[in-house]
Amino acid sequence: MRVSSLREHIEAVPLVDHHVHGCWLGRHDRAQFENALNEADTAPLAEFDSAFDTQLGFAVRAHCAQTVGLERHCGADEYWNARARIDEDVLAQRFLGGAGVSDWIVDTGFAHGVADPEQLAGLGAGRVHEVVRLESTAELAAAATGDYAAAFDELLDRQTRTAVGTKSILAYRGGFVGDLSDPSPREVADAAARWRDAGGTRLTDRVLLRFGLHRALRIGKPLQVHVGFGDRDCDLHTANPIHLLDFLRMSGDTPVMLLHCYPYEREAGYLAQAFHNVYLDGGLSINHLGARSAAFIARLLEMAPFRKILYSSDGFGPAELHYLGARLWRNGIGAAMQSFIDTGEWSEADATRVVDLIAHRNARRVYRLD
Amino acid sequence: MRVSSLREHIEAVPLVDHHVHGCWLGRHDRAQFENALNEADTAPLAEFDSAFDTQLGFAVRAHCAQTVGLERHCGADEYWNARARIDEDVLAQRFLGGAGVSDWIVDTGFAHGVADPEQLAGLGAGRVHEVVRLESTAELAAAATGDYAAAFDELLDRQTRTAVGTKSILAYRGGFVGDLSDPSPREVADAAARWRDAGGTRLTDRVLLRFGLHRALRIGKPLQVHVGFGDRDCDLHTANPIHLLDFLRMSGDTPVMLLHCYPYEREAGYLAQAFHNVYLDGGLSINHLGARSAAFIARLLEMAPFRKILYSSDGFGPAELHYLGARLWRNGIGAAMQSFIDTGEWSEADATRVVDLIAHRNARRVYRLD
Amino acid sequence: MRVSSLREHIEAVPLVDHHVHGCWLGRHDRAQFENALNEADTAPLAEFDSAFDTQLGFAVRAHCAQTVGLERHCGADEYWNARARIDEDVLAQRFLGGAGVSDWIVDTGFAHGVADPEQLAGLGAGRVHEVVRLESTAELAAAATGDYAAAFDELLDRQTRTAVGTKSILAYRGGFVGDLSDPSPREVADAAARWRDAGGTRLTDRVLLRFGLHRALRIGKPLQVHVGFGDRDCDLHTANPIHLLDFLRMSGDTPVMLLHCYPYEREAGYLAQAFHNVYLDGGLSINHLGARSAAFIARLLEMAPFRKILYSSDGFGPAELHYLGARLWRNGIGAAMQSFIDTGEWSEADATRVVDLIAHRNARRVYRLD
Repeated sequence: MRVSSLREHIEAVPLVDHHVHGCWLGRHDRAQFENALNEADTAPLAEFDSAFDTQLGFAVRAHCAQTVGLERHCGADEYWNARARIDEDVLAQRFLGGAGVSDWIVDTGFAHGVADPEQLAGLGAGRVHEVVRLESTAELAAAATGDYAAAFDELLDRQTRTAVGTKSILAYRGGFVGDLSDPSPREVADAAARWRDAGGTRLTDRVLLRFGLHRALRIGKPLQVHVGFGDRDCDLHTANPIHLLDFLRMSGDTPVMLLHCYPYEREAGYLAQAFHNVYLDGGLSINHLGARSAAFIARLLEMAPFRKILYSSDGFGPAELHYLGARLWRNGIGAAMQSFIDTGEWSEADATRVVDLIAHRNARRVYRLD
Repeated sequence: MRVSSLREHIEAVPLVDHHVHGCWLGRHDRAQFENALNEADTAPLAEFDSAFDTQLGFAVRAHCAQTVGLERHCGADEYWNARARIDEDVLAQRFLGGAGVSDWIVDTGFAHGVADPEQLAGLGAGRVHEVVRLESTAELAAAATGDYAAAFDELLDRQTRTAVGTKSILAYRGGFVGDLSDPSPREVADAAARWRDAGGTRLTDRVLLRFGLHRALRIGKPLQVHVGFGDRDCDLHTANPIHLLDFLRMSGDTPVMLLHCYPYEREAGYLAQAFHNVYLDGGLSINHLGARSAAFIARLLEMAPFRKILYSSDGFGPAELHYLGARLWRNGIGAAMQSFIDTGEWSEADATRVVDLIAHRNARRVYRLD
Repeated sequence: MRVSSLREHIEAVPLVDHHVHGCWLGRHDRAQFENALNEADTAPLAEFDSAFDTQLGFAVRAHCAQTVGLERHCGADEYWNARARIDEDVLAQRFLGGAGVSDWIVDTGFAHGVADPEQLAGLGAGRVHEVVRLESTAELAAAATGDYAAAFDELLDRQTRTAVGTKSILAYRGGFVGDLSDPSPREVADAAARWRDAGGTRLTDRVLLRFGLHRALRIGKPLQVHVGFGDRDCDLHTANPIHLLDFLRMSGDTPVMLLHCYPYEREAGYLAQAFHNVYLDGGLSINHLGARSAAFIARLLEMAPFRKILYSSDGFGPAELHYLGARLWRNGIGAAMQSFIDTGEWSEADATRVVDLIAHRNARRVYRLD
């Protein structure tokens, strides 16, 4: 039967998870686990609340239960208790192994308490590549002696010799609104001096943030940019990628990878059509949307050319997230494409080919993984 | 059969309509009726137009026809004529009684020509509670003698002894963009003096609007905020709840209830995840979306934690609206959840429990109705 | 069977394509063809990319293949080769003839390399009407001698004696944000003098753009406004129609036609409810959304009153676009309305009547075509 052959293809297709973090390796308590299921609120949850009562919580119970020995849709307490009885590194092996990912492209910029790339590779669940977080490079340059710009360049050159790309969290450091042009050397030197005097931690200086972005353009490897949905420290509307328009007009051929995008995925898709070098994914939004992620994945298939769409989980912490991203993506892309086939808009061969593009071909091409 | 048991549960579940106004009790003409079906345009409709030719108009003909003795999808003239032959208070009893609402939380701030809480309670269709409109309290304080702030505080204290919450229509008084911090006593006194000199009606002074919001936070009872879709006096984009970010960062534990939300329901859902004390509903958008309301209700089930979502109709005027909100919500939530069950994402037990949360449990908890 | 009778009605209903451009009549190469399938990027596509790998490209292969003698979903190379073997004017006749359009309302403001109205009429595929592009009128007035405002008025009066409406591309000339009030004669004279000194080409002066809009209001014929999705020269977010609020508050009874609207169709629908004289369509977005256009067409059926929604293709260049707009609209409106019928929200008679409104009745009324 033709329908099931698309489904079979989607189940088996290897993924490149082009933006992910480390998973937990050590024990955590339930409060930490529930907090890890809430992206936007950085404080502990309210007493009346539970992160299990969200789309993500329901998706964990639906899709991860069997991996911890339970039935689909098991209770929240039941899930937590079963999970707590298994060593975290065993969970990591099971969940990452179950994701069907051939290559993990890891952002090590925020890595507190999670596996580093070597440990991830040690799990035997796929090759591991790194992206360099520009704001971390800036902090290293601030801590170095001598000229800031020279220190930054030297660091970034060295880091990107092995890394496959760079990453910016400008969304969390003031957002995209305003001038994002390349600052002059003098402006950089002045800003760096001020920042170093102030301690040189948690970069929020716009001049130095802009400097980092333009240095990344010069390197030419894919530049990942956090877009849209994130925690409440970020002013969501200033992380609308449409505010990157002027920056993109200056960005030349360096691939710019818009991550997560919700609820601005339509603007992101427009930019992917408007600029040769712009790409997008659904990232962490997919996990958080759970049963609603299929509708979101379908929206990613609007204006963006099919050679500009990628897959990522943005998993961080509980290894469920590294698995669930893949599970929900396979379900969602299958549902979207089947509906296109059922209405006669696409052929099954079309769908199969676009699955491969998004699952791995686009990522392999743009990150030069082969 | 399991499917029908969810539907049966949804049909029978009692609702808390946590934001509603009075219904008509006296006779109105057809032009008034049609105008009451158009939220955004405050002027009479154009000659070529009819409010029956909208999603809301179609929904009235589909769902309210039987209550006036007609067949579903009857003609517009037919509907109007049948309705006009029935006393308005009989219509009110039938429609409110048919809504399956146990508790009506009534905004009495705009009550011209509609039932007051006592009259609503007299219809025998459920318990009636009140919310205090902050802008009305301000107008009373302006009309009082002596210190404005003291008068406001005394009034609000007295009103909220029995009222279950407060309500702000800042969206209609300049919107959310700009400073929403607590003004100093001196600023309040100066602004109040200016406003009293100018007559003390229709509050648009930002200082006094901000003062009212922060006084409501201090009371601690749920603060309802009109968000998004409303009439054309409001600049829709300035009623995007994302512009409340800084205010929410100051809002502590007082529940903030985002009402209606269309077309910013995704931003509202994000805020409900990001802040312990933020809640949302679909309010009047559901009625106006008619056949498209099911898709909207599904979007409310994205980022917002399930313990943060409520039901309301925002019915005002024709009692059809008080009924239709409930009817469309039952249909829409049923369709959304059935699709989650059909794709294996949720269990039916999950769905049943979330129905109860949204239908009444969340409202009972946050408004302390029991 | 009732279901198929709605489908049959939709297949047969004649359309008014109320915003369209000329189609190609002469030969073009494949690069030009692929570029014509990308709206947003004005530069040639990247080497790794193909416009066939987009929703629009897939829709061309699905729906236009039979017209060039191939099977649905044929390969991209196959499609191009077959198309290249047929004369462009033969393609134009086939595709325009197949669209089932009775009236084409043509924007001749950007007409390089495409059929003019006379040539379009010569294809025998329907009556042809014109709209006047205000920015072109301005350029003619700049090239004239004597008072600019008088020259503009005289030209516009003459042009709109036969034209059925006007068109503004303010979206591409700075967007909607900012003052859009009617400038004073003195401001106009000064701005015109400056512009004439600078050569009088490609109008971007805000004073003169505002002048043109208000002159169009005075004429009273429908004023088409490009909204949302377009090429990357436009700052998408400044083409959000909500920024037209103040202009619409000044616009009186002149119909204002919001074109394309993606991704701001919800804001556009709100405006169509809020203002007597505001209308909307899906325009070029429908073609570019391909398999996702049905979901978009359903969103157009939200807040906008049904007497305020129109059809257009915005076809320009390859005649596939003139056909595909109609094909996808028929499919999408059918799917949307069938779902409303299936859930009991609409009757089939409701659907049939609204199809007629959107297909041609609204356009005939507002453009006075009969």
